[in-house]
Amino acid sequence: MAWRYPVGQAGNLRTENQIIERIWSRLPSRPRSQDAPCLRLGVGDDAAVVHENGDSTHDWVLSTDAFLEGVHFLAGVHPPESIGYKALARATSDLAAMGAVPRYFLLTLALPAKRSGKWLDGVLTGMARAAHEFGMILIGGDTSRYSSALMSLTVGGQVPSGKALLRSGARPGDGIYVSGRLGAAQLGLELVLRKLNRRRRWKPLLKPHSYPKIQLTLGQWLSQKGLASAAIDTSDGLSTDLAHICRASGVGARVWAAKIPAVSVPEELTRRGLDPLELALHGGEDYQLLFTASRSAARKFPRAFRRVLITQIGEIVRGRKIELIGAAGRSTSLLPRGWDSFRLTQRRGA
Amino acid sequence: MAWRYPVGQAGNLRTENQIIERIWSRLPSRPRSQDAPCLRLGVGDDAAVVHENGDSTHDWVLSTDAFLEGVHFLAGVHPPESIGYKALARATSDLAAMGAVPRYFLLTLALPAKRSGKWLDGVLTGMARAAHEFGMILIGGDTSRYSSALMSLTVGGQVPSGKALLRSGARPGDGIYVSGRLGAAQLGLELVLRKLNRRRRWKPLLKPHSYPKIQLTLGQWLSQKGLASAAIDTSDGLSTDLAHICRASGVGARVWAAKIPAVSVPEELTRRGLDPLELALHGGEDYQLLFTASRSAARKFPRAFRRVLITQIGEIVRGRKIELIGAAGRSTSLLPRGWDSFRLTQRRGA
Repeated sequence: MAWRYPVGQAGNLRTENQIIERIWSRLPSRPRSQDAPCLRLGVGDDAAVVHENGDSTHDWVLSTDAFLEGVHFLAGVHPPESIGYKALARATSDLAAMGAVPRYFLLTLALPAKRSGKWLDGVLTGMARAAHEFGMILIGGDTSRYSSALMSLTVGGQVPSGKALLRSGARPGDGIYVSGRLGAAQLGLELVLRKLNRRRRWKPLLKPHSYPKIQLTLGQWLSQKGLASAAIDTSDGLSTDLAHICRASGVGARVWAAKIPAVSVPEELTRRGLDPLELALHGGEDYQLLFTASRSAARKFPRAFRRVLITQIGEIVRGRKIELIGAAGRSTSLLPRGWDSFRLTQRRGA
Repeated sequence: MAWRYPVGQAGNLRTENQIIERIWSRLPSRPRSQDAPCLRLGVGDDAAVVHENGDSTHDWVLSTDAFLEGVHFLAGVHPPESIGYKALARATSDLAAMGAVPRYFLLTLALPAKRSGKWLDGVLTGMARAAHEFGMILIGGDTSRYSSALMSLTVGGQVPSGKALLRSGARPGDGIYVSGRLGAAQLGLELVLRKLNRRRRWKPLLKPHSYPKIQLTLGQWLSQKGLASAAIDTSDGLSTDLAHICRASGVGARVWAAKIPAVSVPEELTRRGLDPLELALHGGEDYQLLFTASRSAARKFPRAFRRVLITQIGEIVRGRKIELIGAAGRSTSLLPRGWDSFRLTQRRGA
């Protein structure tokens, strides 16, 4: 999910925010015109946008993501194929959110010797499947030995010049839309954390967590047709990702709880406290697209784009507040408390 | 130093080679023409080369490098400023070896909470110094919490289309040249490993290890003037890096020991077994340029380019053998046994 402008309020997010702000303030990230003719968009969106020069017909979109054992995946729990697939999918989802066509990736890999055989083969099989699916090729990398398995992926894609979908264009009156169903990946993660993932009847519920579908074609369609005023992928969870759009666009939002296309949760699991709306509001790693569009643009939206549901869940408003309108019309503040990479570690007491 | 085609023979290198070969064979790395119109050069050189389309005036050169606590640096020994500087310098040296002008970098950073204050500030100060020196800006990244400090840097630069310096162009009869003095960084590392680094009189000897100078201007000059038939940066050590050039070019080499510009080693340290020629032949991380040039091109070489010594150390020959010609004219095989990232760990028993 690369870097986004810090919006979180929870304890550990505050720390991560401070680190991000420190990095941005201390490292040069705004070009002096003479030494970086090529930057369109730097740190703070889903990905960076660079171009060769003023005559370029296409921009390059670049993003980077770490995928670390014990933080983002559990080597003893997650199948290696899923680890490899997801490592590339989550990085490439940032390209989907910009409307870019994926082209290449670079892979930094560190491994303990004991994982360099069959386990690595599984990871590479999953990653190759993702690469073929997304149309990407490996163009470089680096390998080291290390006490646990670490990956960092940099992905690059192309978009027609100036057509990248940004977070900053949402305007009051725009509708807020989301693809697919929200909370499905979090539901899978919850099954893993509650050690229910080996039960045969819950296996299908794990798939959105283990093999997330990313919305490349939808992102490219929105970008090519100029239909979205702002876009982001739902990697941190709706409440956090909507806050990113609102912050970047300088607007507020009103979300209708009843309209949110939440994951279906079997009754046995709702009894265990897994609430569909909670999962949909704050669950991370869905890698759906969250985007805004003017009323005239929205008329061109099908109910489903290539079998992916598109649902209006609210509207952009003036101000800065993000409100959730409940079933009885009651309004509450929707605070960003989406998934973050630390939660997995925290729950396990690391 | 990114990935290079495996040439090593030592035990641990064989393992790393197998991993690299496995990655290359399992992940798609050769473009199918329709889905990767943009690749000029993929895995196997110092960096990858991509371009927008056939009309592009410039190519993009990309490389990635991990810099891991306990493998590439020791957080308790190396000053944080040096860690930050070196992390970016060693990644960017791959751009120097291609003749590219550095433009941007993406930073993946994982940190324990205890290193997120003053230590991180020091790292960022050193990295900012390198970024300013090289004319690069940060365009993206990712942060996670982790039990030790991990960095992965992806760097991007530009070179006029088709002008990137490759490893594959060395021809029999070409001279072999090297910039600066070899073995200086390894001498610094040896002082650290022998715990002599805190002695005041050896401090100046640490600098090439802690703050390596990379040869951007020389690389750009060789590329722009079309003077080098092949080039690489000496990150793995002369014996290994020359093997990379010979392998990629399908040639052999003859190196004259007496001509190698080896680091000066104080007598007290030679008595401790630090031999200048050994350091120069196999010591890593010098980040000098090793390149080949035809006789006519070589006539244009100054003795020093902007105060950086340029020395002919041998010649390219037919066949595959790499020979070292000793002082008495005696020839021995020069096997690649350069520095690798595992050595630091091994020496420390990790």
